[in-house]
Formats: sequence, structure tokens, C-alpha cells
Amino acid sequence: MNDMKLKHLLAPTAALILAPALGFAQEATEAAEAAPGFDEIGPYIMTTLLFLIGGFLVMWMAAGFAMLEAGLVRSKNVTMQLTKNIALFSIAGIMYWFVGFNLMYPGDAWVVPGYVGILFSPTALEPVGLAAADASLDYASVGSDFFFQLMFCATTASIVSGTLAERIKLWPFLIFVVVLTGFIYPIEASWQWGGGWLSEMGFSDFAGSTLVHAAGGFAALAGALILGPRIGKYGKDGRTVPIPGSNLALATLGTFILWLGWFGFNGGSQLAAGTVGDITDVSRIFANTNMAAASGAIVALILTQVMYKKPDLTMTLNGALAGLVSITAGPLDPTLFGALWIGAVGGIIVVITVPMLDKMKIDDVVGAIPVHLLAGIWGTLAVPFYTEGASFGVQLIGIVAIGLFVFVVSAVVWFILKAVMGIRVSEEDEINGLDMSELGMEAYPEFAKG
Amino acid sequence: MNDMKLKHLLAPTAALILAPALGFAQEATEAAEAAPGFDEIGPYIMTTLLFLIGGFLVMWMAAGFAMLEAGLVRSKNVTMQLTKNIALFSIAGIMYWFVGFNLMYPGDAWVVPGYVGILFSPTALEPVGLAAADASLDYASVGSDFFFQLMFCATTASIVSGTLAERIKLWPFLIFVVVLTGFIYPIEASWQWGGGWLSEMGFSDFAGSTLVHAAGGFAALAGALILGPRIGKYGKDGRTVPIPGSNLALATLGTFILWLGWFGFNGGSQLAAGTVGDITDVSRIFANTNMAAASGAIVALILTQVMYKKPDLTMTLNGALAGLVSITAGPLDPTLFGALWIGAVGGIIVVITVPMLDKMKIDDVVGAIPVHLLAGIWGTLAVPFYTEGASFGVQLIGIVAIGLFVFVVSAVVWFILKAVMGIRVSEEDEINGLDMSELGMEAYPEFAKG
Amino acid sequence: MNDMKLKHLLAPTAALILAPALGFAQEATEAAEAAPGFDEIGPYIMTTLLFLIGGFLVMWMAAGFAMLEAGLVRSKNVTMQLTKNIALFSIAGIMYWFVGFNLMYPGDAWVVPGYVGILFSPTALEPVGLAAADASLDYASVGSDFFFQLMFCATTASIVSGTLAERIKLWPFLIFVVVLTGFIYPIEASWQWGGGWLSEMGFSDFAGSTLVHAAGGFAALAGALILGPRIGKYGKDGRTVPIPGSNLALATLGTFILWLGWFGFNGGSQLAAGTVGDITDVSRIFANTNMAAASGAIVALILTQVMYKKPDLTMTLNGALAGLVSITAGPLDPTLFGALWIGAVGGIIVVITVPMLDKMKIDDVVGAIPVHLLAGIWGTLAVPFYTEGASFGVQLIGIVAIGLFVFVVSAVVWFILKAVMGIRVSEEDEINGLDMSELGMEAYPEFAKG
Repeated sequence: MNDMKLKHLLAPTAALILAPALGFAQEATEAAEAAPGFDEIGPYIMTTLLFLIGGFLVMWMAAGFAMLEAGLVRSKNVTMQLTKNIALFSIAGIMYWFVGFNLMYPGDAWVVPGYVGILFSPTALEPVGLAAADASLDYASVGSDFFFQLMFCATTASIVSGTLAERIKLWPFLIFVVVLTGFIYPIEASWQWGGGWLSEMGFSDFAGSTLVHAAGGFAALAGALILGPRIGKYGKDGRTVPIPGSNLALATLGTFILWLGWFGFNGGSQLAAGTVGDITDVSRIFANTNMAAASGAIVALILTQVMYKKPDLTMTLNGALAGLVSITAGPLDPTLFGALWIGAVGGIIVVITVPMLDKMKIDDVVGAIPVHLLAGIWGTLAVPFYTEGASFGVQLIGIVAIGLFVFVVSAVVWFILKAVMGIRVSEEDEINGLDMSELGMEAYPEFAKG
Repeated sequence: MNDMKLKHLLAPTAALILAPALGFAQEATEAAEAAPGFDEIGPYIMTTLLFLIGGFLVMWMAAGFAMLEAGLVRSKNVTMQLTKNIALFSIAGIMYWFVGFNLMYPGDAWVVPGYVGILFSPTALEPVGLAAADASLDYASVGSDFFFQLMFCATTASIVSGTLAERIKLWPFLIFVVVLTGFIYPIEASWQWGGGWLSEMGFSDFAGSTLVHAAGGFAALAGALILGPRIGKYGKDGRTVPIPGSNLALATLGTFILWLGWFGFNGGSQLAAGTVGDITDVSRIFANTNMAAASGAIVALILTQVMYKKPDLTMTLNGALAGLVSITAGPLDPTLFGALWIGAVGGIIVVITVPMLDKMKIDDVVGAIPVHLLAGIWGTLAVPFYTEGASFGVQLIGIVAIGLFVFVVSAVVWFILKAVMGIRVSEEDEINGLDMSELGMEAYPEFAKG
Repeated sequence: MNDMKLKHLLAPTAALILAPALGFAQEATEAAEAAPGFDEIGPYIMTTLLFLIGGFLVMWMAAGFAMLEAGLVRSKNVTMQLTKNIALFSIAGIMYWFVGFNLMYPGDAWVVPGYVGILFSPTALEPVGLAAADASLDYASVGSDFFFQLMFCATTASIVSGTLAERIKLWPFLIFVVVLTGFIYPIEASWQWGGGWLSEMGFSDFAGSTLVHAAGGFAALAGALILGPRIGKYGKDGRTVPIPGSNLALATLGTFILWLGWFGFNGGSQLAAGTVGDITDVSRIFANTNMAAASGAIVALILTQVMYKKPDLTMTLNGALAGLVSITAGPLDPTLFGALWIGAVGGIIVVITVPMLDKMKIDDVVGAIPVHLLAGIWGTLAVPFYTEGASFGVQLIGIVAIGLFVFVVSAVVWFILKAVMGIRVSEEDEINGLDMSELGMEAYPEFAKG
């Protein structure tokens, strides 16, 4: 109620006089009388706040992906990459409301129990001014939960856009995003976080190394295979031609944004903040998340120095991100030393697998497959080292199941899109750049090409 | 007290020994004894925290405007645009302290009751270490309230700088900002949020579609009319010459920053976070705000595809912003579907009115008038669809009253500035760019012009 | 526990049925029974939250330094500057865990009481699911405290990288960062914040004008003197040759990021948020911090207009930062007017001392010595104006002691590094730019040089 903006200025007497005109004082008094104490409502308020803060931090990751990708593509494709990023985030916001949230969290109203939740049931928020008696006092507001979970859905889509940059058409990509954010992600995520069959089996993926990152990576991989590499990326002699990013300052900014947002991603996934144990756990998660990123970055920096005699900034950025992805499956249980070595292995994976993908002629513009898919698998497999009750076998089942599902369904969607409308721009358009050919708008129209 | 940095390390015994030297242990103990419980102080703490978090998010919007505008002007005017943005934010910080806050929130000490508050009464904060007995326990700290409200004042000024870019002189612009942030905004905002005549009448503008965004837009419109369009913007044959922005990556970054900051803008305007109802309402607001931005962006994307056969990134960015402005007058009451269509209409407004303004030869460099003024009016008029007690008639009265006041006073100020010192750079300086002519410093001195 | 993601969907009955499979319902119930009320745990939760929020805001400052520095160096050195920034932040994350935290906060286990804490004792976090009975209920979680304090350590290192840009080799710089973040900073900071001899003496430095900013500045000064100025910075006729930054949009973005992060830096240093007095104090700090930045910026803007007839954006940015550094030693006690003039003096210091440093041929690429060292000293000396019990004499002792320690130890480290491996790139490499010579990767490979 914006009228409350003046509340603090009113002396008690003034409040009584103005009360009828403003119409809030009386309600406030009644609410105070009826309200349960903080012992009852404190945890609800704190957990809701955790979701709101965590949610806006993960929302900020959308900007991080946009900057990272805009910095790593050539300047002739920057406007397109920016357009894809803001559009995919918007689509996720609509589809997750329209289909995703209740498909992912069906409660006990599954269409196919444990496998497929409720279809086409748009999210409904609580009424305005919810009474404490009507709230899930042992959890948080639906609105905050929806807001937080939506951002994970959007992240999955962000991962795909980087891999397929510089050659995929705008609209088929966005249609894929509709399917991914409305159906593919919510279904596979429901298997675990919605209480489906994987969670029954004991699969453990705290904040989504597999459910979000590897899933996004599998969707990207399917797209990359069907789309093919960029023109000129792989020479006729089999050699890989490096295509440097056009703006490493933006790419670094994007990485720092992602690093920041990840505190919300992992910390918010504690899903509770109203007890000593929970808020202390959130602290552990923040500290571990930072450590894994740091070690991923440093290991990549040192490894590129050793392997190539020159430290490589983009590898270091991807090393930090791989460290973050690696710790995401289990950011709570490891010690800080555990986070260090789990993140470090993530950094090693990136440095080693980026050239391997190139040898397989899988063209991943920003390195999203090594960072999100491979480090995501690693992080998921690392969970049993520190988490009691987690087993490598079940972790593997989860990775394979989600991988197969996401990869196969994505491939089918990509094939249909390819058949129906084509997914790749013409050779001429690709060479001229997508910005002029598809959008007619350059990102940096005044800077001469060097 | 920074000495408390070591508090957690002290065993009880150590604390007793060190207590005299450190001088805090005893105070702490006494405070604990005297302190009221969380049932009493919890809401105050939570609402204060809401203002602090909301405030820093809205502060961040100043960076968003700076990046958006720096990205949408030509590179020869980027340094100037950045200078204006950091200077206007700083001026707002000083003027809102020196005049604005108590002019806007006079309590019952109006100079002209309901119309003009207290003049030249600088903001005073609570004493250090405020006792609970001296606090407004049903609201929040004055310091957090001032911090939060200040950021709204600064936002109003940010809106103006974009419209008038690339031709207005620095100092007259900054003098206008002094008047806007010290007087114009606080006076019109006091009519509603200070408990003035508009709030008595039942006007409804939750977070400021009209009070902030349309007001900024009216000030910008007055300036644009008096300043005239940029040289070369409108050809002699009456055609509009597109002048593309120099850095769409920055413009997109700015939009994401604004989107993020808007959660604080709208969410913080709940002005309370210490009850189940309030924190749940903040959640609703977050979810609705995101939805309106998403639908505004997607509608603008699709509409530009349909109308011009090419999706337009800058329109999409402005569509997202228009969606945000549209939902700002009533972000709490609509359903998610309501937020979707309210934001979508905002997106449509932008796509349709940007060329209309050009036909009227009103040169608005970044599209701030469509986004903030027109979508702001739309959002204010949309309130009665979802908010009980709001009426179109009263909403219209509020828009017209604020519009007239801000437009007329702004125009007077602009005319005085024009007469006294001139507001427009010379033709030669404009063609050479304001960076070299007014500041002698290029933003990108090493990048060759293409 | 990510399984709790489905908790809110379970009706009580469902919860009972699923409880054995999910393994959380029973624990939750037991915890609820045993849990102390919010009167006991509320302050712990709120202070922990303050550290987490403050910590992620200060973490974000690392991105701010990276953007500021990347914007102020020439484009041929941007990749290197970005690499240094992400690497130094990562190193700080590892070293502060491995050595720093317990060296800085040794409790009563000093190696040399009051002077040197515990060496090589890596940080250990609390166990997962900490019971309230085992928590320091009058403070916050160790994890959140570590996370927050780590970011201050990283900030100290960020300050150094700007001064030494464009000529220092990567690896010697990073080795210096290892020493600075693992040993130099934790030792001098322990003298005050760890309860060492300076805090016993009554030194007052709330959030680190001296402990963080001047310390970073002293380390940078030692490096600058030993490293020497960039080639071409000082002409043979003794004149200073201006070397403009390559991207002022990035520099401005970096400044806004730092401004935002500073709310966490100063606000979090209240170290408590769970009482009316504490959260109100945090509000005071936010408001004062913003005011000092605003006045520093405006004064620098006006002063450059008066002195050079052209307002200077980079001076304005540094003026804002100097205002922030100035208020950091005492952001709580001053009135808003106090913050205004303390920040304003900071702005004046920057404008006056930047050319003075150049006359002394001390080449400080980004102006970090005026901003962090000189304004830091000013801010520390300004504390007694508003803080009871602080004395100029003791403040001076603190500044001199920390200055001497940091400067001498840093100089020794720089000399050793110079002797062992060399710290400066070759003349040819410096002229060609560090990006190509040391890293083989340009930041903006496609933009032609103008």
C-alpha cells in the first residue's frame, strides 16, 4: 500500500485522525492483534526473503550470460546474441508461468506419477495480504518460490544460446526455448525437485549441476550436432581455426556477474533460512561456492600457462564457471578444501575438453558444453565424496536418464524445426554476420573493423 | 563498532577480561536485558532491511540508465552522457537531503497543506544506536526510508538525461536537475506519498508510474520541445533519419540492470516486510514485475518482426522497460496474467509511439518519453482493472495534475536557463560531438571510426 | 537439502507418507521442538544475513575494479588487466582460507600477542546443520563472517593492480598478491580487527579507510616506485603526457559497481543487524556512504571545471571513489552533513594530488594512490570530528604503523621479485602491449585502432 509511505510521519494522534481517510491504520491494528509471533512466522519470512534475494541474484545471471556471450562472439553477431538473450529470458518468464511451474511441482497431482506433472496449469499466486493462517508457515510464499524457480528455468535456456551462436536463426532458436522452458526442463527437473522418481531413488543434485547445467548442455549439444559448426571454424586440413571473441571486457564482466549470481543460485537452494542451522548452511554454501570458482579459475590459468606457455583469459573465465558448475550439485556438504579440489577438477576439465570438442568438430562458441555439461556431470559424480547417502550408481543413473531425455527430446525438436523452417542462416548471411542479415542493426556501428 | 569484528573469537572469559578495554561487552549485555522481543522489533528490522535492499537495487538503476544511454548515443557523445549520469545521481543525493525529503514527507507541517511541504529542512537521521523505545516500531528507520526514497528521486532525473542527450549543455542540464530533484519531484510526489491532496482523493500509484516515470517523462518532454531535435535527425523532406546507438551491448546491459533494480523499485514500495501478508505481497510484486517486463519485451520483439520484417533489439529493450513502467502503478493487485497483458500493452505503446514522436519532430534520443511517460500513463490508468477502490476518473486527475505541474514548471525552468545561459551547444560543437567540444575527452579514443 | 524443494507441496498426510523416503520431515519436527525462539536466534540470523548480503556486494566490487581498470588502460593492455583482476580475486579466495582468516582473527591464540596471529591454519566452517546450542548466538555464522572478511582482503589486492597496470608482468604480480592476501593484509588488519595492539590503543577505523584502502595504496606505492613509470608517461622536458583510458563507459560502470558494493563494505561492517539500534545504524551508514560519494563526485566535477575549464569525467569518477574511501573509516557517526564535507574533501584531495604524483613521476595508471591511500588517510584522520573517544594522535599512530609495515614489507617483496624473476616486461613488449606479448590475446581484436 503506497499510502503507508507516510505512515512513519504520523504521530499516534495524527494516525487516529487520518485513519479513516487513509484506511490502513485500523487494518494494521487488527492484523497486529491477530498476528502470530515471530517464532511462528519468522522462518516463513526469512525463507521467503531468501528466495527473493536468491531469485534476483539468479535473474542477474541472465545479464551475465548475455555479456559473456556478447563478448565471445564476433562483433558482426553481437546484436543477435543480445536479442536472443533478452528474448529467451522473457520467454522463460512466460512459459514457466504458463506451463512450467506446475508441471515441475505437481504435488500429488501427477499426470504420470513421478514422471510428468500437471500440464497447462498456469501459476496462481497467493491472494494479496495473505493471512498467516493461510500460509505454508514451514516453507515460503508461492510467489517467491515461483520467482526463484523461474530463474533456474531461464538459466537452462541461457546455456543453449551460447553454444549455438553465430549461425542459428533467431525464431527457430526461440521456438526451441519455448519447448525447453515450458516442457523439457520442468519435466526432467520434476523427477528430482518435484518429488519424482529420481528423488525417490536417492539422486542428489542440490542446486542443479545436472538438472540445470548438464541439462542445458545436453540441449546445446543436440543443437550443435544438428546445426553443424560455423563456416571456417574447421579448416579442410582438419585444423581448428581460433575465432577470438570481440570484447573480452564484456566476457569478463559476464563471468563476474555469473559468479555473483551463483551465490543466489546455490545459496537459495538451501530453501530455508529461518533457523540457525539453515542460515549457517547458506553461509557454508556461499563460502564453498566462492572457493570452487576461485580454484577453477586459478587452475585453468596455471594449466594454460603450462600447456600453451601463455595464460588464457577466456579459459580462466570458463575455469571459474566450471568450478561453479562443479560445486553446484553439492555446495553444502564439502569442506572448503573439498570445494577447492572439486572446483579445480572443473577447471582442468574445461582446459582439456575444449580442444577435444574441437577435434570432434563440435563447434561450441562459448565453451558451454565443457563448462555446463561436462563440469556438471563431474560435479554430480563428486557428490558422494562428501554427502552421506549419495551413491555413484544412483548419481550415474540420474545423469544418464536426464541426459538421454533432454538430448533425445531436444534432438527431435531441433530436427522438426530444421525440417519445417530451417534452423541455420544462409552461408552468405553467416559470413556477413547475423546482425545485418537478420536484424539490420549493428552492435558497434561506428567502430571500424580492424 | 568495528571492534566487534573480534567479538566472535572471544571465549566468555576473554570477553570479561577484554570488556573494559573494548567497551562493548557490558553495553551488549545491558541492551540484551532491556531489548524488546522479536515480536515487537521484528517487523521494524525486516522493513528496514527491505528499504536497504530495495534502495541499493534502485541505486543500481542509476548505473542502468547510464549504460543504456551511453549505449544509445553516438560514440562522440558517450563521455558527456556518462558525466551527466554520474553527476545527476550525485546531485539528487545532495538535493534530496538538503530539501527534498522533508518537502516530500512533511508530516503535519505543510507550508501549504496537501500541496507544499517543508522547505529547506535538511534530513536528519536517528541518533547512533537508537533505542527500540525511540523507534517507529510500526515502520522502519528514517535512514533506510531516506535512502530508499532518495533513489526514486534520482530515477526521475535519470529519465530526463536520455531524452535530451547529444545536444544539451552540461551545466544547464545539471542546474535543471538541481531544481527537479530538490523541488519539482518532491512537491508532486508529496501530493500522493506525503499524504497530500491526491492521496486524500484516492489516487493510486503504488511505486510511481506517474509520480516517478511519467513525471520524469514530462520534464523530458518540456526539455525536448524547448531544446529542439538534433541536427540531421529530421531531413528537409520530412523524413526521420535513424541515428543508431554506438554500443548495443551496453544498452542491453543497462536494460538488464534496470530490470534487476526494478525488483527493488516495486518490491520495496510495499513499505513493509515484517508480516506474512507483507512479505508475501513483496513476492507477488517481484513475480508480477518480472512478468510485465517479459511480456513487454516479447510483444515488442514480435511486433517489430511483423511491422518491419526485422526484429528490433532497441525496441525490445524499450519494450521490457515499458512493461516495467506499466506495472509500476499497480504491481501488487494484478494476477500474473494481469501483469502479462498490462506489460504487453506497454510494449505495444512503445513500438507504436516511437515513430509517432518522430513524426511530431520530438527528438527523444533513447525513447524515454514512450517508455516512461506514455507507458507510465497507461500503467496508472490500468490500476482500476485490478485494484478495488481505484477509479479511472481519479487516476486521470492525478496524471493531468502531475503532468501539468511538472511540464509547466519544467518548461519555465528550461526557458529561464535558455535565456540566461543557453541550453544548447553550438552547431559546430554538436557536429563534432560533445565529448571533444565540452569535455575534451573521448570515451573510446583508440577505436577508429568506421 | 534440495529434496525440500517439494516440501511445500505436500499435504500433512503426504508428508507423513513420504517422510521415510525423503528423510527430512522427522528431523524438521525434532528441530522445531528443540529450537530456541526468535528472541534468541533472530539476531544471529539477521547478522549472518547482513554478512551474506554485505559479502556479495563487496564481492561485486571485484568486478567494479576490473571494469574501472579495464576502462582506464589502453586497449592493448585490457586483456592483461582483466586477467590480473580475476586471478587476484581467486588468489585472495584461496589464500584467505589457507592462511589469512585465522592469521587475522586468532582469538587468544596469537603467535606474537597483538601482532601476529595463527599461521597456516586453514579456515574451518561450522558443521552442516549447526544446532542453535552450538552457535555464537551473539554474533553470526563463521561461514558468513569468513565470506564477508575475505572480500575485504580481495579489495586490498584490487587496489594494487590498477596502479601498476600496463607494465608489470603477470606472474610476479600474482605472487605479490599471494603474499599480500595471505600475510600482509591479515597481519596489519589483525592489529585492529583481530583485537591486536592498535585496537587496544583505541585506533578507530570502522570499515577500513586505512586497514584496507590505505594499506592497498601503500602496497601499490611501493610497487610503483620500484617498477617505475610507463614508457612515454613523462617526457624528457619533464612534462607529463596524458595517456587516456580506452573505454570510459567501462570505467563509469566500474565506478557505479564500486559505489553499489560500498553499501555492503561499510554497512556490513556494523557487524550486527538484529537489534533496532544495529539495523538503524546500518541505515545511517548506507545514507552517509551515498552522501560522501555524491559530494566527492560533485566537488571533483566543479573543481575540474574551475581549474581546467573542462569538467573531467575520470576525475569525477575518482572523486566519487575518494568520497567513499574517506567516509569508510567512520561511516556511522557523522551526520549527513558530516558525510558531505568529509566526502567533499576526499574529492578535493584527488583533484589536487593526481597532478602532484605526476610531478613526482610516480605513475599511477588509475589514480589508486590518491583515491585509496591519500583519501584513506584523510578519512582516518577525520574520524575524531564525529566519533567520541577517537583521537588524532592515535589515528596518526595507526596510519603510520600500518603504512610503514605495509610499505616496507611490500617493498621487500617487490625487490625480491625484481631480483629473482624481474617484475617488468621488456620495453618492446610494453610498447606492443601486454595483451599480445604476454597473453597473445587482444581484448578488442576487431576494432581498428584510431
